[in-house]
Amino acid sequence: METLGYYNGTIGELHEISVPMLDRVCYFGDGVYDATYAHNHVIYCLDEHVDRFFHSAALLRMEIPCTKEELKTLLSDLVRKVDSGDQFVYWQLTRGTGIRNHLPTEGPGNLWVMLRPAEVQDTYGKLNLITLEDTRFLHCNIKTLNLLPNVMAAQKTHEAGCDEAILHRGDMVTECAHSNVHILKDGVFKTHPTDHLILPGIARQNLIRACKALGVAVDETPFTVAELFDADEVIVSSSGSFCMAAATIDGKPVGGKAPEILKKLQDFLVADFQEKTK
Amino acid sequence: METLGYYNGTIGELHEISVPMLDRVCYFGDGVYDATYAHNHVIYCLDEHVDRFFHSAALLRMEIPCTKEELKTLLSDLVRKVDSGDQFVYWQLTRGTGIRNHLPTEGPGNLWVMLRPAEVQDTYGKLNLITLEDTRFLHCNIKTLNLLPNVMAAQKTHEAGCDEAILHRGDMVTECAHSNVHILKDGVFKTHPTDHLILPGIARQNLIRACKALGVAVDETPFTVAELFDADEVIVSSSGSFCMAAATIDGKPVGGKAPEILKKLQDFLVADFQEKTK
Repeated sequence: METLGYYNGTIGELHEISVPMLDRVCYFGDGVYDATYAHNHVIYCLDEHVDRFFHSAALLRMEIPCTKEELKTLLSDLVRKVDSGDQFVYWQLTRGTGIRNHLPTEGPGNLWVMLRPAEVQDTYGKLNLITLEDTRFLHCNIKTLNLLPNVMAAQKTHEAGCDEAILHRGDMVTECAHSNVHILKDGVFKTHPTDHLILPGIARQNLIRACKALGVAVDETPFTVAELFDADEVIVSSSGSFCMAAATIDGKPVGGKAPEILKKLQDFLVADFQEKTK
Repeated sequence: METLGYYNGTIGELHEISVPMLDRVCYFGDGVYDATYAHNHVIYCLDEHVDRFFHSAALLRMEIPCTKEELKTLLSDLVRKVDSGDQFVYWQLTRGTGIRNHLPTEGPGNLWVMLRPAEVQDTYGKLNLITLEDTRFLHCNIKTLNLLPNVMAAQKTHEAGCDEAILHRGDMVTECAHSNVHILKDGVFKTHPTDHLILPGIARQNLIRACKALGVAVDETPFTVAELFDADEVIVSSSGSFCMAAATIDGKPVGGKAPEILKKLQDFLVADFQEKTK
C-alpha cells in the first residue's frame, strides 16, 4: 500500500476510508492523538508515544479500546503494510459516535491510524521563525484534536515565508505551533517546564536525555522573548526534526554562538534514531 | 425522514452518512458551525445565524461553497424533508479534504447539515448553574468546532447535577459553556461586551432588542463573579432557551428579585419566536 488509513478495524488507502458523520470528532474535535516517524518499518520511540497517548486520553477521561501492548502490535503490523519504510505514523482516539450532545458518550472510543511515506527532516538545517502571541487554550499538555490555533499559526508562518512560529504569552515563551522551543545560553539548556502551557514533547525529553548524557546543564524554567534573541542557540525540537537551530526570528539573525554543543546534541539524537530504527 | 444528514450534496438519515477520513475536521477540528431551531418547519432567525456563519468562516479565511441566499434556501428545503416541524437545525463548514498538513487547503470547504427533532426549552424554567474557570482559547468570538473545553465543562456540570456552567477568567465572568450569561441589577441589564472572549449570541442580541423595546437599560461591560451572586436576576440565553433565570449557582440561591422585568423579557422573546415561525 502507498498509504494506510485504519478506522475501528477497517483498512484501506487514506483517501478511501470514510467515517460516520456522527463521530464526535466531526462536531467537537473530541479526540486525542499521537504521532512519530518510522524508519526501516520500525517506529521510533513507540513506547513513549503510546504512553503519552494513553495519558492524553486519561486526562480527558476517554477510553481506549485496547491495551498499550495491543496498540503497539497493531501499529507495528500496519506500518509493515505500507511500501515505504520511512513513514509518518499517526494515530488518534475519538470519544465515540452519537447524536451531537456536549455530554460525553460512555465506553470505548474510536481508534484511527493514518500512515503515509515521510522522512524525518535534516536536523542540521536551519530554521527561520516568527513570533506570535499564544492564543491557545490552557490544556496544551493534552495532545488533542482541537488544533485551530495551530492551523492559524501555520497560515501566518507560511505568509511570512518562515518555517515555524514561536508562541509566547506576553513576554513568556511557551513552545512552537507544532514543536517545542529551547535555548542554549552560557552552556545551559533552558526549556519551559512541562505544565499546562506546553506539550510534553518526546523529542524534548530526548533532547534533555542528550544534554544529560553530554554533560550540558538543563534548566526547566520559562524564558522570555528577549532571551530568545540573546541566546547562544535557539533550538526547535519535534519528532520529525530532533534538534534544529534557528537562523532568524522575525527576520533578525539569532544564535550561531554555540555550534559545538549544538552539533553534539544533534549527533546524539540522529545516532539514537538510527540505532533504534535499525 | 426522522433526522437528516447532508454532506456536500449527499443526503440521508444522520446515522447513515459518512465523510472522508481526510476531511480536515477529523484531525484539526478545522471548521465553523452555526445552529438554531425550527418550529412549524420554519427556521428562527435564519438571516442572523447565516450572517454569523459567514462571519466565522471569514475570520478563519474559509471559503463557503455557496452564497448566503443559496444556503438559506438549502436549509429551508432540508428542514421540510424532516417529519417533525420542531427541529434543531445545525450546519457546519470544514475547511477541506487532504493529507494532514497544518497549512490550510485552498478553495471551497465542505458543507454539512445535521437536522433532528427537538423543541426549544421552557424559558420560564429555572436553572442550576456551577462556576468554572474559563480555560478556552482566545478566539471565542468565532463559532468553531474546537469544543473540547465545552465538552469538559458539560462533564463537570453533569457531575454536579447542574444544567450549565458559568465560565470566568479570574474574577471576570465571560459566558456559559454553551450560552451567554447576563445579570439584571437595579433595573439594568448587564452583559459582557462582544470581544474575543465570548460568542456574539443571536439570543443575546435578541435579549438586548427585547430590553430596548421594553425600556430596560443595557450595559455591555464585563461583570464579576461577586456581581452574579448579588444580582437581582441571573439570566442565561441561547437559541434554544431564550432567557432562562438561574435558581442557584454553586448550590447557593441567586436572583429572584426582579421577576416582573424577567417575565416581560421572556414574554417578548417567546412571542418573537412564535411570530417568526408561524
